Order: sequence, then structure tokens, then C-alpha cells
Amino acid sequence: MRRAIELANESVQRGGGPFGAVIVKDGQIVAEGSNSVTLLCDPTAHAEVTAIREACRHLDTFHLEGCTIYTSCEPCPMCLGAIYWAGIQRVFYGNTRRDAADIHFADDFIYEEISRPLDQRRLPIRPLLRDEAQESFRRWMEKSDRTEY
Amino acid sequence: MRRAIELANESVQRGGGPFGAVIVKDGQIVAEGSNSVTLLCDPTAHAEVTAIREACRHLDTFHLEGCTIYTSCEPCPMCLGAIYWAGIQRVFYGNTRRDAADIHFADDFIYEEISRPLDQRRLPIRPLLRDEAQESFRRWMEKSDRTEY
Repeated sequence: MRRAIELANESVQRGGGPFGAVIVKDGQIVAEGSNSVTLLCDPTAHAEVTAIREACRHLDTFHLEGCTIYTSCEPCPMCLGAIYWAGIQRVFYGNTRRDAADIHFADDFIYEEISRPLDQRRLPIRPLLRDEAQESFRRWMEKSDRTEY
Repeated sequence: MRRAIELANESVQRGGGPFGAVIVKDGQIVAEGSNSVTLLCDPTAHAEVTAIREACRHLDTFHLEGCTIYTSCEPCPMCLGAIYWAGIQRVFYGNTRRDAADIHFADDFIYEEISRPLDQRRLPIRPLLRDEAQESFRRWMEKSDRTEY
């Protein structure tokens, strides 16, 4: 965790957002990340997402079984989603989503939105052409050599 | 939406997951994406995240104001989080999170987990060293030339 916090501090100095994360496997750091949204023009380049992508590259896998992530702030819904998809098994965090809200980051707002039914969100989200979209799911299920995850 | 569905179908054929997305601005497609998790060994390479990264590269921005995303399936929490962070203003989706659950994708499970209080989730998530982590947030607020988003 101290390394994650150090990455967050270094990130502020470099012009990135105040967030850092490290991924640990078998007692060793396998990847590090810091928030580079504005530096890279990539709204998905949060510390945790960056560390997950780096760990997967490093370990040549899309599933980080047996890994723990230490992040300087509670993961936002995007990063928490990425943590689930990556199969990371434990999370430690420093600052909370409310601490992040106090310095004007939208984490807490996004948590509220995502938990709401679709028709009660501020962001308009509407169904369209579900019948046609089903075709890709049918093809997926019919594909005998599909790689599931 | 038809192009997003076509991308999903093509993705299945290519060995990726059955998901496609396009981002539209001023009536023009500015980016496309399809699910490449297993092909790229990147658990964050969902169709929407891939399209958002591409749109930001293409438009040289980290904020996709005035953009609409068409995705062949309701965005998972990771992708929906990315959509909020990117500032996308409208979402249209084909298949639902329950359709995705029917073909063994974890979207619905992750929605349930993310909406729960931290101590009621299956994934262990614990606070650690908050006092020390606060330092990066203090430095951020003291930085007069910070780029907010």
C-alpha cells in the first residue's frame, strides 16, 4: 500500500491524477499503475485499470487469479468492474469514495447512478433492436471453440 | 446500432467475445470497438472501453461531450463507469445484462456486487492506511495547475 500511495504522490507531481495502484502475486509486485487520464487522453486510464492491463501483459493472461490489488483510493465502479473481470481476489484501498468526492472526483455520483434502475438515471440509456442483437449471442453459443472468461 | 451488432457478429467469427460498440458524434461514427479480452489478454478490452479509447485518440480529448454510444449489449459496470468518466451523453443498447447472464457472462453478478455495501460483497475489500493516502489528495488540492476532469 505504501508503494501505491507513493505512485499517487508521484502522479500528482507529473501532472496526472492523485491515484496509484499495485498488483501483488505471491508476495511480489507484478504491476504498477497511476492515473494518466489527462496525460494520455484516455478516460479509462485510472490507476487500477492501468495496473490490471500491465499485470496481464506481464503475466500473459486475462485472468489474475491469486492476485491482490492495493490502491490508494477505493476503486470507482469502472475499476471495480475491471477488478471483477480480471478475477483479482482481494482489494485494499486507502482513501474512500467520499474522500474522492471531497476533491471533486465523480466516483460517488457514478456509484449512485449505476445502482439505479435504467429509467431513473441522469444518463439517458435506451434499448434498441434487441431482436437483431440476439444474433451475435446465438452465434457465440453455437461456436464450439469459443474462449470463455 | 446495426453497425455495432455487425461488429459483435464479426468479433465472434474472429475469436473475440460477442460484443460490438460504435461512438457517434454529429451523425458520424468516430470510433468502433469489439470485445477483445481473450485476443489481447486484456480484461478491460470490452467493446465500449475499446471504442471510448479509440474515440479519445481520434478526437484528441479525454471528454466525449456530444457523443452517443451504440452498444450491442447493455454496458457492464466497468463500461458504464467508463461512459460516465468519458462524458458520453446517450447510450443505446441491444441485448440486456440478463441476456448476457444467459450466455454465462458475469455482468449481472457484477452489478449486484457493486451495489452492495463493501462488507457484504463476495470480493474481500478492506481499508488500509487512509491517513497516509490522504497526502496525495492534499497535494492535488494544493496544485494550482492541476487538470481536473
